Amino acid sequence: MSTLRGVGVSPGRAAGPVLLVHDRLPEPDRGPEPADPTAEAARIRPAAQAVARRLQKRAAATDGEARSVLEVTAAMATDPGLLSAAEQAVTGRRLPAPRAVFEASEQFSDALAAAGGYLAERVRDVQDVRDRIVAELSGTAAPGVPEPATPSVLVSRDLAPADTADLDPSMVLALVTEEGGPTSHTAILARALGIPAVVAARGALASGAAGARVDGAAGTVELVAEPVTAEAATRSETRWRGTGRTADGHPVKLLANVGSPADATNAIDAGAEGSGLFRTEFCFLDATGEPSPDAQRQSYADVLRPFAGKPVVVRTLDAGADKPLPFLDIAAEPNPALGVRGLRVAFDRPGVLDRQLAAIVAATEDTGAEVSVMAPMVATPGEAAWFAERARAAGVGRVGVMVETPAAALCAEELLAEVDFASIGTNDLAQYTCAADRMTGALAALNDPWQPALLRLIALLGDASASQGKPVGVCGEAAADPLLAGVLVGLGVSSLSMTSAALPAVGEELARRSLPEWRAVAERAVSAPDRVQARERARAALDG
Amino acid sequence: MSTLRGVGVSPGRAAGPVLLVHDRLPEPDRGPEPADPTAEAARIRPAAQAVARRLQKRAAATDGEARSVLEVTAAMATDPGLLSAAEQAVTGRRLPAPRAVFEASEQFSDALAAAGGYLAERVRDVQDVRDRIVAELSGTAAPGVPEPATPSVLVSRDLAPADTADLDPSMVLALVTEEGGPTSHTAILARALGIPAVVAARGALASGAAGARVDGAAGTVELVAEPVTAEAATRSETRWRGTGRTADGHPVKLLANVGSPADATNAIDAGAEGSGLFRTEFCFLDATGEPSPDAQRQSYADVLRPFAGKPVVVRTLDAGADKPLPFLDIAAEPNPALGVRGLRVAFDRPGVLDRQLAAIVAATEDTGAEVSVMAPMVATPGEAAWFAERARAAGVGRVGVMVETPAAALCAEELLAEVDFASIGTNDLAQYTCAADRMTGALAALNDPWQPALLRLIALLGDASASQGKPVGVCGEAAADPLLAGVLVGLGVSSLSMTSAALPAVGEELARRSLPEWRAVAERAVSAPDRVQARERARAALDG
Repeated sequence: MSTLRGVGVSPGRAAGPVLLVHDRLPEPDRGPEPADPTAEAARIRPAAQAVARRLQKRAAATDGEARSVLEVTAAMATDPGLLSAAEQAVTGRRLPAPRAVFEASEQFSDALAAAGGYLAERVRDVQDVRDRIVAELSGTAAPGVPEPATPSVLVSRDLAPADTADLDPSMVLALVTEEGGPTSHTAILARALGIPAVVAARGALASGAAGARVDGAAGTVELVAEPVTAEAATRSETRWRGTGRTADGHPVKLLANVGSPADATNAIDAGAEGSGLFRTEFCFLDATGEPSPDAQRQSYADVLRPFAGKPVVVRTLDAGADKPLPFLDIAAEPNPALGVRGLRVAFDRPGVLDRQLAAIVAATEDTGAEVSVMAPMVATPGEAAWFAERARAAGVGRVGVMVETPAAALCAEELLAEVDFASIGTNDLAQYTCAADRMTGALAALNDPWQPALLRLIALLGDASASQGKPVGVCGEAAADPLLAGVLVGLGVSSLSMTSAALPAVGEELARRSLPEWRAVAERAVSAPDRVQARERARAALDG
Repeated sequence: MSTLRGVGVSPGRAAGPVLLVHDRLPEPDRGPEPADPTAEAARIRPAAQAVARRLQKRAAATDGEARSVLEVTAAMATDPGLLSAAEQAVTGRRLPAPRAVFEASEQFSDALAAAGGYLAERVRDVQDVRDRIVAELSGTAAPGVPEPATPSVLVSRDLAPADTADLDPSMVLALVTEEGGPTSHTAILARALGIPAVVAARGALASGAAGARVDGAAGTVELVAEPVTAEAATRSETRWRGTGRTADGHPVKLLANVGSPADATNAIDAGAEGSGLFRTEFCFLDATGEPSPDAQRQSYADVLRPFAGKPVVVRTLDAGADKPLPFLDIAAEPNPALGVRGLRVAFDRPGVLDRQLAAIVAATEDTGAEVSVMAPMVATPGEAAWFAERARAAGVGRVGVMVETPAAALCAEELLAEVDFASIGTNDLAQYTCAADRMTGALAALNDPWQPALLRLIALLGDASASQGKPVGVCGEAAADPLLAGVLVGLGVSSLSMTSAALPAVGEELARRSLPEWRAVAERAVSAPDRVQARERARAALDG
């Protein structure tokens, strides 16, 4: 028996037999040359369309983030550039169709990887699409997750979004991957499906274990040689009644992160008290130019409407070289995550910001949601003041900033003096604090939100919140970890915004202890020398 | 009259008439087709060789960092790939030779830019080489800095390394650039040449001013319509006698950053008390594979020998996707600065580290320098402990770590508990604290070492130094700013390592005030709300 320590990304415990997900199809052969290249080339499009249809069908049966991921993957399968490159490789270079698809998608992947940032993350999706088309052409089984015969713990290198979206939670007890980080698609979708998950568990594939016990909160995977009786995930009961509070009645707003009208409906259904992060990018992603003020107003209103009478924090456009939007014409950068992104984009393009602010104010009037507006990627009090002035001039009543840079946390008092509230984006704050790309699997441990350095920055923000009398919330993935949520409250955070699926577990855990007790738990975690001890000390302080 | 605020990167004040450096040559025409393409193609190599010869001649007349920059640029001018691509564009596509060189070097630049990081920084160098060859082929004057007829303030977009290295300090009073950051070549070379410089001074080119007053410490450029009488830079006198101390005799080691035997000799000549940063990369850069233990031992000994009896802090190999070394086989990353670099490279390749540690210990015995060894890019106390164990096992007597990540500063006490000392790399620490790429000109203000957030992290390290009884030094560019050097000492830093040229000015400024006075100055700076007020308050506290 051995215990692997990875990074827990979706809470809950489960145990059961291990089902290995094999990496991918072998490379298709370069030969023999097709007898009739034209006929061979003609096989490609129907195969790709069959793959796209199956993915679209799955998308239709899903909703929220999983749905949009599947829709993007389906569109990729019939990308005209990919298909005509593959056809030319058959007719021009006389490759068999499977090999031609393989090589054409490699060019595509390389270009994405070279583009870096958000596009580079899509490489895994292209490979998934490639393998599905190759399997279709070869008449072999589609790669990816086998249908489990009994409820099992899935162990894989990493899962494609299409794989995770396709999982049947009743047959999948837990997910364990060797790669991926806390903000990978695997992690986000596992949380949305309510399946415990541990990523960056190196050695899981090669272990040969027959059974596993997974703790998706602690990030541990206990591997055993014998098969283990299946134990479905112990998720929290739904004793939570839709209002966040500690055992002594201290209120903590429990909110949902949303980015589309479907997310908003899900959030309300899940009992969210509002939204602590409304990502407005969705309104810009499909547009060829800047959406008109009216189009923006309508898009925002569609998301705000379900929240009538409830608080919603709208984040202004968060684009940059890592999430490029053609109309902004942002230059490529050597390190997009450290480049001109978030509010920095607006410094040279204040008109885009002003038009968005006006559309948000108009949509607020249309819907009756209690709207606040915040800016992403703020580093200094001066930047916060610049944004606050424009937002107030546009008629925004309550103005805030995201704290994603260590600098913003280190100047928390001066920052809060300029605005009405702050919201901590723990995903980016973790990546900058440890200088570790959140997309790099090898650095996942440095992105663990239990890193004491990250907790210490959050403590600075909690102290500034108390001294300035202005609220500080968290809207990163850290808020979805029930134990960590209690620690964040103990550090002085007064609202938590997360994926809707995590709300009940967080709500219940918070209510187990009083605010003074959570403060004591937080004190133990923040003074720990490393992330493992931070969690263990918090757990011990809570149980002891 | 108007005053621009940029980022001061080389201290000193000067005033004089403005000399504008024009951007670059116009794009060469696509036609007419050469009558004899073979003869036209044959013109390219001699022109490139003439350019390379001139650059080599300048390199021979220089030393230190300027020399190696010029040598690299000269080598680029005769790059075989570049020249044969240009020749083929003449013979194949019938382009005139200047246009062919232009297009071939664009491909080269694009490839460098796509590679990102260290290579992307080389794009400016390729463009400089291109313009020189095109000018040579067209029989026009070489681009770049005109020969000033009278002592002048040079104002440009950015300077190529070859330009800055070629400057005559007696004719150039100060440098002002619109782009570039505190760690750009322009900044490094200006400091080495002792010329006051301000970078990221947006609007300087278009101002039409006839005269300028430059303060390279404050980062200000006063532009006036009338010509200004030349006033040579007021650099510090050499009252400094080679030992760093405050007015009340508190010792502060004043050290030099070195990366080659020539640097080491310069350091000793300049009166350095030792070296606070010996970059060992130079020993690896030209090697096709990992240099043998003996080759490493000899290379290190050549740098250590001038420091016999003096302290030298050797930094182990700092490579990564941003500074790739072929033998390490590091994968490309979307954000190399946030990737597997520094000590992180050693986690999967401990043998490379162990062999380097053994070579450093052997070179120490060969030379009698008082050697300490530190690791780059450490984020957690656990990583520090891992390095310390290996270094001590190799026989290193004094082990430290660089503090370049906010996480390391936030866990300063636990970090220092694992090692004997720490050294703050302010360049990287600034870039991660504000999440702003230090190579991106638009973000230069966020990389100003006067940012209060950065000073607050340094204060945490100073406090931990006092409580743990272990020294903390600074080896970034911040140490070369005399006023900031005093602030660093006031924050608890006990050694400062910088470019040799900056030592006298820093030594003299430090000796002006007592340690309690520097503490009071530091307190004023660290509590300021922004970088501009941090500097102004420090200056006022010192003068008042």
